[in-house]
Amino acid sequence: MKQYITLKDVALLAGVSYQTVSKVIHGNINVRAATEERVWDAVATLGYVPNESARSLRLTQANVIGYGLLPGEVQGVNPILEGFLHGMMAGASQLGFEIICFASTGLIDDDMVTYQNLFRSRKVGGFILSNIESGDARAQFLYDHQIPCVCFGNPKRNGMDYVDVSGFEGMKQTVLHLVNQGHTDIALLGWSGESRVGEERLQGFLQGIAESGLCEDNAKCLFGYGTVDSGYELTRGLLSGHHPTAICAMNDLMAIGAMYAVNETNLTIGGDIAICGFDDFPLTQYLRPSLTTVRQPAFACGQLAVEFLVDQIQTRTPGQHQAMLAPELVVRESSSKFF
Amino acid sequence: MKQYITLKDVALLAGVSYQTVSKVIHGNINVRAATEERVWDAVATLGYVPNESARSLRLTQANVIGYGLLPGEVQGVNPILEGFLHGMMAGASQLGFEIICFASTGLIDDDMVTYQNLFRSRKVGGFILSNIESGDARAQFLYDHQIPCVCFGNPKRNGMDYVDVSGFEGMKQTVLHLVNQGHTDIALLGWSGESRVGEERLQGFLQGIAESGLCEDNAKCLFGYGTVDSGYELTRGLLSGHHPTAICAMNDLMAIGAMYAVNETNLTIGGDIAICGFDDFPLTQYLRPSLTTVRQPAFACGQLAVEFLVDQIQTRTPGQHQAMLAPELVVRESSSKFF
Repeated sequence: MKQYITLKDVALLAGVSYQTVSKVIHGNINVRAATEERVWDAVATLGYVPNESARSLRLTQANVIGYGLLPGEVQGVNPILEGFLHGMMAGASQLGFEIICFASTGLIDDDMVTYQNLFRSRKVGGFILSNIESGDARAQFLYDHQIPCVCFGNPKRNGMDYVDVSGFEGMKQTVLHLVNQGHTDIALLGWSGESRVGEERLQGFLQGIAESGLCEDNAKCLFGYGTVDSGYELTRGLLSGHHPTAICAMNDLMAIGAMYAVNETNLTIGGDIAICGFDDFPLTQYLRPSLTTVRQPAFACGQLAVEFLVDQIQTRTPGQHQAMLAPELVVRESSSKFF
Repeated sequence: MKQYITLKDVALLAGVSYQTVSKVIHGNINVRAATEERVWDAVATLGYVPNESARSLRLTQANVIGYGLLPGEVQGVNPILEGFLHGMMAGASQLGFEIICFASTGLIDDDMVTYQNLFRSRKVGGFILSNIESGDARAQFLYDHQIPCVCFGNPKRNGMDYVDVSGFEGMKQTVLHLVNQGHTDIALLGWSGESRVGEERLQGFLQGIAESGLCEDNAKCLFGYGTVDSGYELTRGLLSGHHPTAICAMNDLMAIGAMYAVNETNLTIGGDIAICGFDDFPLTQYLRPSLTTVRQPAFACGQLAVEFLVDQIQTRTPGQHQAMLAPELVVRESSSKFF
């Protein structure tokens, strides 16, 4: 019995030349469909396994990027991550890569085996991670194991590649816009606990207050959860006494909750009290009034993340690419007296 | 020079037994991390390629499902497909599969090479397709080439597996709800052209009218595009003369356009004129008034599609699984006099 099947055996069975088999196997498309069909049939019949060097196997197989998605029921609808995924797809398509998606828990202990299996078996050439926290353990693990990795969100560790959108800048611009509209008494609705995103946005808010020459008495910070209900409850509390004339919510859902609370009073949104959100969630332009918010270039982030990762896979040198993109303040009726 | 590297070479270099190498390579997790590390290092150093039969290679590699996504800029934000993707991820995770995403154009001529390469090179075991049209050419191609495939949407061809949500049923239920609220004069806002989804929803609308004992004079059908602007323009036209007391839009965006047009008149939504959408787009519950709409079980569809495909991959028998799920009418303020 023969030890192993060669390209020549395949050629013989398919009735084509050695070169033609090679072309088909390497994805050269200048082969007639019927011929290609015959070659693949012979490959299947003989059980041929390309006996090439591991290097060329890696080149063939590593044109795949691993992306761990948190379960939908945990993260809910997330248009930012949807835009990011589409950006990754576009970037990958341009560079001849594919994206392999797997269910992630966001926890290193659970994902570790998946990462190693996918990478060590050469199914993927590297990973893109989202839902990054400061000092993210998944990113650290991949970095320590010299597995190429790019984070969507700054993991705040030297030597790691990331793309991020500046929540700091977005929140600061929101405050400056409100001050520009004449507001001097501004509340923040945010979330408590250790959150990289929350902390960035809080610091941007405080910076905006400071740059405007306002003091901390003019900036009331309230913390709950990033939900409509929480925004509603916090705002009800806020409106019960002497209240600010503007509310900056850390996301659109909290801003919607704030709108509901204001609508229960005699105050008008936009006129008496300004409300701003963050994320530019779909349909926020159709709320009444339409919601001022901060738009994140999620699609561009996805494209960049892929470019960074492909470069890292090819150069085997992490730490060469960090990008902090600026978000865009989208002013609408909810924060403008002039609409 | 040796012809090829064997498992024993790897064992020798790693300083472990043959059995241990085999365990590591086959993903058995009962191996100490340090040992596993040594084995993989030896695999990489020697350039070892598992010299197994093509059959076992296929078993290893085909635990991947291919999913072609239309580019984001073409399809826009699509919460249904986002929910579907999350459902696929959950289903795949449960069955030990991964999803490989690639950019699709939705056209067979462009995607054909991708399908064949991914399947023939055994990177994927089959495909799940969305954005299905009647007699979908991509589905037909995969079926003809005996490549396992499940459609999200009924391709209306015998022998093909699919999961779908009945737009017919959703639209019929909407009409019955409106008639139940006392409406006898109902307009449809839809889109023109050949669209499987549009045609389903139109037929459901007409069926609801017929089942309610209304005649076609009570059912004005207007066709434009599935956008806010189109819904707005169609409704302006509708309101200029004698107008119906209820509007059924084929999607939420058109319903939002209709709300804008009604808000320019003295009519109140919900009281004077009912408006219903379709899709339960995120945030439609926060519109003012909140929008009555039809919710699709997209997550469940994604899970089912994976189960169907995995079964088809294992049995090599297409045509065994078709599921038509029922959508859920979500009644809110925009269509109810009693809120």
